Amino acid sequence: MKIAVNLDRLSSELEDLASFSDAPPSEEGTAVTRVVFTSTDLEARTFLETLAEKAGLRIRRDAVGNIFFRWEGSDPSLAPIGTGSHTDAIPHAGMYDGTVGVLGGLEAIRALKEAGFQPKRSIELLMFTSEEPTRFGIGCLGSRLLSGTLSPEKADALIDKHERTLEEVRTAAGFSGGLDTVKLPAGYYHHWLELHIEQGPLLEREGLPIGIVTAIAAPASYKFYLEGFGGHAGALLMPERKDALCAAAELILSVERNTLATGAIDTVGTVGTAQIHPGAVNSVPSRVTLELDLRDIDPARRESVIEAVRRDIAAIQAKRGVTVREELVNADPPATSDATIVAALEEVCRDAKILYKKMVSRAYHDSLFMARISPIAMIFIPCRNGVSHRPDEYASPEAIGTGVSVLAAAMARLAAQ
Amino acid sequence: MKIAVNLDRLSSELEDLASFSDAPPSEEGTAVTRVVFTSTDLEARTFLETLAEKAGLRIRRDAVGNIFFRWEGSDPSLAPIGTGSHTDAIPHAGMYDGTVGVLGGLEAIRALKEAGFQPKRSIELLMFTSEEPTRFGIGCLGSRLLSGTLSPEKADALIDKHERTLEEVRTAAGFSGGLDTVKLPAGYYHHWLELHIEQGPLLEREGLPIGIVTAIAAPASYKFYLEGFGGHAGALLMPERKDALCAAAELILSVERNTLATGAIDTVGTVGTAQIHPGAVNSVPSRVTLELDLRDIDPARRESVIEAVRRDIAAIQAKRGVTVREELVNADPPATSDATIVAALEEVCRDAKILYKKMVSRAYHDSLFMARISPIAMIFIPCRNGVSHRPDEYASPEAIGTGVSVLAAAMARLAAQ
Repeated sequence: MKIAVNLDRLSSELEDLASFSDAPPSEEGTAVTRVVFTSTDLEARTFLETLAEKAGLRIRRDAVGNIFFRWEGSDPSLAPIGTGSHTDAIPHAGMYDGTVGVLGGLEAIRALKEAGFQPKRSIELLMFTSEEPTRFGIGCLGSRLLSGTLSPEKADALIDKHERTLEEVRTAAGFSGGLDTVKLPAGYYHHWLELHIEQGPLLEREGLPIGIVTAIAAPASYKFYLEGFGGHAGALLMPERKDALCAAAELILSVERNTLATGAIDTVGTVGTAQIHPGAVNSVPSRVTLELDLRDIDPARRESVIEAVRRDIAAIQAKRGVTVREELVNADPPATSDATIVAALEEVCRDAKILYKKMVSRAYHDSLFMARISPIAMIFIPCRNGVSHRPDEYASPEAIGTGVSVLAAAMARLAAQ
Repeated sequence: MKIAVNLDRLSSELEDLASFSDAPPSEEGTAVTRVVFTSTDLEARTFLETLAEKAGLRIRRDAVGNIFFRWEGSDPSLAPIGTGSHTDAIPHAGMYDGTVGVLGGLEAIRALKEAGFQPKRSIELLMFTSEEPTRFGIGCLGSRLLSGTLSPEKADALIDKHERTLEEVRTAAGFSGGLDTVKLPAGYYHHWLELHIEQGPLLEREGLPIGIVTAIAAPASYKFYLEGFGGHAGALLMPERKDALCAAAELILSVERNTLATGAIDTVGTVGTAQIHPGAVNSVPSRVTLELDLRDIDPARRESVIEAVRRDIAAIQAKRGVTVREELVNADPPATSDATIVAALEEVCRDAKILYKKMVSRAYHDSLFMARISPIAMIFIPCRNGVSHRPDEYASPEAIGTGVSVLAAAMARLAAQ
């Protein structure tokens, strides 16, 4: 069977999808902002559904807005092969993160259909709701619910910055019904595969077109609420200050220092946001909220970093009289890829004479949660300079095409058994 | 002449004025947000004009929205005695900053009228536009224009965060005409007096009801634009990072360290705001903007702090590969009070057996700029815990009453000559 990926079609669809965006134009590239359940996100979903209908796929939407696109196999009683990713985007992001796995998954299915392939197992393309944590502060909302990692009650009570609950927001967006209906049974997918840009520099640096992901790093995120003592910037004298922003600055540097101190390249720690109260040039900051993202492939090492940060926080509190409250947003264990799927991917690459390497995913993905209910693996393709979450994020049509062809061939192999 | 301040009337008017606010309710006290030329600010102005009309004062509004309330003297050809302050408030501020000088000034005039006093010189109450820098990034907008410290062209070109110019905003608020008509001639006021809460702890700590201000500290403000390199918080490895927020943290701590290093209690430095781009928990910050407020009664010592910060910035840039651009927003010289007015205030206090101390104002005020065109002095009253710019800012009715009676007696003395 000769599988031909239509790169023009796929590239043009990626461009069209990128046009659903709330980002102002950027000189750095195609800027995309697409936050879950905004009108922009809903329009992008409609665009995707139209394409999938044209490809003859059956559509199912669940109560949190995950969308399933199904190509029925010759034996519908067998557990399907799944693939997919997300289409939401953080503010000022790029056009390839997630979208390559969704539109690329669709293209893989179309290429298999056009090659005359008839799967024995059904093949399902899945678009996950809110992989990005932008709106509700927690990533992989859709896949956490699908895998039973997040309770329906906790999920519905999540609030956005306008104090609207997930329940309100999803209902307004047209996704109603109880979240308890979202969870999939264990073994729902016989095998699960996700195609994604690497979001790191390794494949490009080594000149390799494909990465086969053997493990996904364990992410954790925390909020820190600092409370000091505010006042007039002219009149509150230096010795009397309990400046919450100065304390926050020490905490930010503590995170950096302790992350570097593990000596492991796989440990990454980032303070990505800081909200300052009252936030006026002539007012001493009385309250600051920081958000920390901490990841490692080794959960114990990740824990050692947060413990070292906590020791620094104790010292900061004692020294400055600023109180710091820590809130764990989420801390997930790492996932390991399934040996059968990894072997299938290796065979596909060897047969097609495509160079590849086995590697770890330092970014986390919906597949991290899908691993709790199904065997998983991921396919990485290189992206320019390893850059992601920015307008200059870029993957070439050729790189995407190679990824889609490997995905299609692997799905064909797995769906035939 | 027996001057009787009506404390019930004044307290009730302060409460009424505080009700014009965009701040959500606070458990800490009466929270006030009143940003220049919002509908809330305009309603507060109307409230004030209604009170002044009832007191028989003549009203004049200039092109930037400064409002003059005049009590004509028996010799209108003489330069008037001026008093006043501001009614705008930064977000989540309190109800006494500025307002005590405006409504207290009005009460002083009413008390003099009710005592049967007839001034030889006219007495003018002035409400300044935008003492706070919240909207246009520069404080004392009204008094800078009145004193010719800011050019009309530069002022009209100032923009708010919605990219609206001062010219657009003031015109929409009903204040039209050229800003070149705002400047007052030198010597316009024979003497100028401003009543204000101390915004510091000294009077309360020493149990003194009155501070006579002999000098106002020199304020400067700067913006720092930091530019690093963003990316995905999971995939951008630590050794490759140029995190703009980590660089900003070092800059914030440099400001604190170098301000403390002067060893002078009169040096204060504050980073009050930080804007982070893109501002997502899972994105490495690529750009940060900080605002710095730096003050001293000694301009050379203030300059030595910013120079030390600049040396640290050079080191931060070299170490981190993050670029830092500095922008001077304003740097003003200090002002010294007029000996005649200070003497008059001292006599008034001694005659009334009111304890006082001479002191420096570390906060700056419109009087700093009025000093460029007229002899000035200020009257301070204690405020609880020295707190200002917060909802729990508080001055007791008794403290306010003492301040108003000293202001009234001093104006009577100065307006009679």
